[in-house]
Amino acid sequence: MDKTLEAVHESMINGLGQLTDFFGFSPVMGHLYGALLMSPEPLSLDELEEIVGRSKASVSMNMRALERWGMVREVWVKGDRRKYYEAESDLWTVVRTIVESRERREVGVALAVLDENTRKLEEAKARLNEEERKLAEYYLARVKDVQAFFEFAAIAMELFLQRGGPPRLEEIVAAYDSTGREAEE
Amino acid sequence: MDKTLEAVHESMINGLGQLTDFFGFSPVMGHLYGALLMSPEPLSLDELEEIVGRSKASVSMNMRALERWGMVREVWVKGDRRKYYEAESDLWTVVRTIVESRERREVGVALAVLDENTRKLEEAKARLNEEERKLAEYYLARVKDVQAFFEFAAIAMELFLQRGGPPRLEEIVAAYDSTGREAEE
Repeated sequence: MDKTLEAVHESMINGLGQLTDFFGFSPVMGHLYGALLMSPEPLSLDELEEIVGRSKASVSMNMRALERWGMVREVWVKGDRRKYYEAESDLWTVVRTIVESRERREVGVALAVLDENTRKLEEAKARLNEEERKLAEYYLARVKDVQAFFEFAAIAMELFLQRGGPPRLEEIVAAYDSTGREAEE
Repeated sequence: MDKTLEAVHESMINGLGQLTDFFGFSPVMGHLYGALLMSPEPLSLDELEEIVGRSKASVSMNMRALERWGMVREVWVKGDRRKYYEAESDLWTVVRTIVESRERREVGVALAVLDENTRKLEEAKARLNEEERKLAEYYLARVKDVQAFFEFAAIAMELFLQRGGPPRLEEIVAAYDSTGREAEE
């Protein structure tokens, strides 16, 4: 293969590994996803093993995780009994799935814990002495700050999910451009 | 100390450890930040060591990282020669600093790599054979998709940073409420 094509292929696989790593997934997941995204044809598990240079066991495990997250899907290749895969090429669909099934739940858990902390502190106030009550008030204020942060995250996520489509980039570009111009004037 | 106060104190320190872990920092950083956030008074390194149950070396190292990220600051306590610290209690300031100094740079690096890949593919086209040129076009389309994703991330970050203050939660709540109502109607 041409050297430039090879270099770009490697650069994209490497970069997607860094991206999945950033999102708390294994970099091998990113490498496998990248290998499929950069292939015009579906790839078999053997081919994927060769491209990412990982063991059969590691490839199988990471491919199962990618399937669960809707990042890759199995495809049927006529006249071939082996399993073939292709990537979900719409990155927004990928991000939506992750936000929907993971981030939303994690933020929900955090908010539930914070609510529980507020409830417990409010209940405890009656039986606390003066000094402890002051500390309870201080704790309530800190819990509230952290709550505001997670509530904002929860609302931003719901807005993102309710749109049902990719963010309207043109609108955001327009808003960004006009803000930039104002700053220069 | 009262058991409820103790439980809330522990829960908040634990939760902030999970949050820093999610953002790719050490959980110990979150525990130290949490210990300071939940303390009405500045704390010394000795006190922090006791609360988070880590070695002097680990506490020093993680406190230096927290100082670099503007998450904690040294404070002078009258009549005491030891070092004391307090937390930056505005979580938005913390998030802004992280986005400004880390995420922005990382997204910038990703965009530069993607631009370079596009440039290399465009340059290579002239000397590629028919089959290779098709693959180059396919690669260019994939690079463009990933670019759109990072460009959106870059713009969203700049908008966030340009605001200079916390996101206007009320406006977002209002937008969220009206969207919710429309969906129910």
